[in-house]
This record gives sequence, structure tokens and C-alpha cells, in this order.
Amino acid sequence: MHKLVLIRHGESTWNLENRFTGWTDVPLTDTGVAQAREAGRLLKAAGYEFDVAYTSVLKRAIWTLWHCLDTMERTWLPVVKDWRLNERHYGALQGLNKADMAKQYGDQQVLIWRRSYDTPPPVLDAADPRGQRQDPRYAKLAPEQVPLTECLKDTVARVLPFWNEELAPAIKSGQRLVIAAHGNSIRALVKYLDGISDADIVGLNIPNGIPLVYELDDELKPIRSYYLGDPEAAAKAAAAVANQGKKA
Amino acid sequence: MHKLVLIRHGESTWNLENRFTGWTDVPLTDTGVAQAREAGRLLKAAGYEFDVAYTSVLKRAIWTLWHCLDTMERTWLPVVKDWRLNERHYGALQGLNKADMAKQYGDQQVLIWRRSYDTPPPVLDAADPRGQRQDPRYAKLAPEQVPLTECLKDTVARVLPFWNEELAPAIKSGQRLVIAAHGNSIRALVKYLDGISDADIVGLNIPNGIPLVYELDDELKPIRSYYLGDPEAAAKAAAAVANQGKKA
Repeated sequence: MHKLVLIRHGESTWNLENRFTGWTDVPLTDTGVAQAREAGRLLKAAGYEFDVAYTSVLKRAIWTLWHCLDTMERTWLPVVKDWRLNERHYGALQGLNKADMAKQYGDQQVLIWRRSYDTPPPVLDAADPRGQRQDPRYAKLAPEQVPLTECLKDTVARVLPFWNEELAPAIKSGQRLVIAAHGNSIRALVKYLDGISDADIVGLNIPNGIPLVYELDDELKPIRSYYLGDPEAAAKAAAAVANQGKKA
Repeated sequence: MHKLVLIRHGESTWNLENRFTGWTDVPLTDTGVAQAREAGRLLKAAGYEFDVAYTSVLKRAIWTLWHCLDTMERTWLPVVKDWRLNERHYGALQGLNKADMAKQYGDQQVLIWRRSYDTPPPVLDAADPRGQRQDPRYAKLAPEQVPLTECLKDTVARVLPFWNEELAPAIKSGQRLVIAAHGNSIRALVKYLDGISDADIVGLNIPNGIPLVYELDDELKPIRSYYLGDPEAAAKAAAAVANQGKKA
């Protein structure tokens, strides 16, 4: 039996400001740091050990991992950073306020942009300074690999090859993995692992900073999955994520 | 021409307490964090860019690197952690106060333990809880690879293979490296790069948290080297390191 731990980053400044973030590289708030350290405490208290850690190339996930590993006294673990674990690209919505957009376009339209499986937000202009095509961290990618918007289907289409090429072989070889990533890159993994339909994934929300444990069989099929710590706290935190796109 | 940047970690809690640290894994002080962030500011202001960062498996160097990269807006850079960049192992002196040892054994004996090229401090018992043979981060090493004491010559003997096998080929291939490490692992590199004699290396001290830049030719011979920032501050900080082993 293999164990895989997924952690969505702690609260970021733009979570707090209720803005669409996507590939914008914003830092953790103090609450986000505390959530990351609490995740480390939960993992340490439960006796978790890891061989390698994975994260995105965005600092809110990277710092979440760093604080988590530090709390576990495991700063020295190898860390692999990969853009394919990045948050879903939010296109022309990046930087805009979720509630403002709900007032302007209606709750229903914002819910579609936030949660529809295959309808992406409006495309960002390639020259828009809110985009990432000039960002040196993506310099080795072909320009068309750096998205201008993504729906969850697009995110799945880059997360799954990373799962198949790197994560799954590492787990099968016996490596114990912790992955600090983002709401939608984790939803992409969960959708695949649990075989959730395109329709049902709309209702799934991942809370910030709470370790999500998957117990996997030899074929990496889930035996069970659960959040560490207080289940009610995890449910409340997930509900709070679901409500971010509302007008009030 | 290649540029290589070496940074000794910022002040640690045991630097502050004037204790022999070696492979003991102690955290940065607030001053140490500020030094690391200042190192990042200096590098960013001077326009330095890196392709890959290296550090030891000890948190005072790792956190120094993390804060430095964060200040440079380069959290996403790949980081390689390797035990061969660790501080010199301080043997049975690990944890003891430098001034206390000077009172007990005399300034001269402590200077020999601190700076002699080939006289190691007293050997730590393999079962001593201050040792590292049970530490999971070294689990893949043969027990005899985990030292019970080291003189600088021993440190050179593990740092140089890492230079030859990993660092030098990376630099020659055009990669721009920053290395966050320790007083003696950096002295080992500097001794090799600058061809310093076994006798003269005794007088060389590396200040905490100040980027040391080497400009290297195609054969990785130094063209010149210098500290970033205020040269007087670097000289003062190096002198303070030299005085740590005195009685008063």
C-alpha cells in the first residue's frame, strides 16, 4: 500500500483579497504561513515520512511546502518544482476581484468560469503584463505551452502527463511523496484518482493547508482518502472556498 | 567567463551562543534571516541571475538560500541539497561553547581545533546522541561516510569530489550557480580555487551572509573574486569570525 499526501497552499494575499490568481505569483499571508506550519505539525504528529516533495513554480505553494517541511524537521528532503503543478491559468480574470465579477456578470457566469470543466475564462492577450510568456521561469517552454487561459480540462491535460511520467512511477518505485500544489491542480489529480465525472467535479473544493491523504494499491487505485486533523474543519474550509465567487 | 556565487549561511542560534555547531542542525536567528535577505537584495540589485542553486542538508544554509532566492523573486529555481556541502564535522566539540573550551584548553588549542588544516577535534563516540549516524538524512550513506570528526583536510576530501563531479561540470556547461553553504565547506572551495597553501588557509575567514563572487575562466581558474556590498563590512564580519574562539 502506498500513501500520497496532497496539500493545497495556505491562504495567499489574493485569496484574502478574493481575487482570481491563477499563474500570478503572490505570497502567503501570515494565516497562510500558520496553515502551512499546522499541516507540518499534523503530518509529524501522525508519523508521516517522505522521500521526495513536489511543488509548483509558484511561491504560495513553494513556501507552503518549505514551512511544512521545516515543521517536520525535514528541510533537507529533495524538492522538485514543476510548472505542471501550477494553479489553473485564469486568463483575463487574473487579478480581478471575484465578487466584483459576480456583480458585473452574475453568480452563474462566475461559477462557470470558476468551476466549469470545459469552459475557460476569457483569453488573456499575449502581450498583457498579467501574462507569463515573458517570465524567465517558463523560458524553456514553447510559447504555446504557456497558457493564456485554462479550463479545468486544460489543467488536467498538463497535470496528468506529469502524474504518468513522474509522480506515478516514483510512487510505484516505493517513494513516499508529498505534493504542495493548488486548488485546481489538486482537483485535476483527485478527479483522475477517484474517477469523478466532468459534471461532479464542479462541486469538489479543496481547503487551504490541510493534508489530504490517499492510500493507493499497487496499481495506484485509491483504497481510501481523508483529510488529516479535524474533519469538520476541513469541510468548513472547503465550503468557504465554494462561496468565494458569490456577490455578497 | 563564468560567475560563481558562494554564500555562507546567516547567523545561526549557535553562532550567537558561540557554540561549536558542525553537523548539528540549528536554525537561523532573526539576524541570520535578515542577512540572508540582504544577500538576496545585493544579488538582485547587481542583476545576478542563476540557473540552479546548491546547498547543504543543514537548515541554516537551506533557509539562507530560501530567503535569498525569495528576495530575488526566484523561489522557483531548482535547488540541489547535498551533504558534501555540510559544515566541517566538529567531533566531540559539537554543542560546546568556544570560549569555555578556550578557558579549559587555552586559546592555542582551540585555534588548532578551529583552524588547523590537518588536526581534527576529538572524535565523537559513534553512539553519542550529538552524532549523525542515526539521522535519516544520511541513511543512504555508509556509516563510515558519516564523520565522527573532521579537520579541514577531511572536509576538502569530500567537498572536492562534489566540485569535480557536479559543480564544475555544471559551471562549464554554462549554468550559473549560487551555493549557500558553511564556513568550512566554503573555505575548502576557496582553498582549491585560489590555490591557498595548507598553512595560509588557517588565516582565512568567511563572513556570514555576504555573497562572495568568483569570476572564472573557461578552465575555471579564478580571474578575480570579491564580496558584494560594502568591502569594509565584509572585512569586519570576517574578523569577527576569527575572534570567536578567544577566551574573553
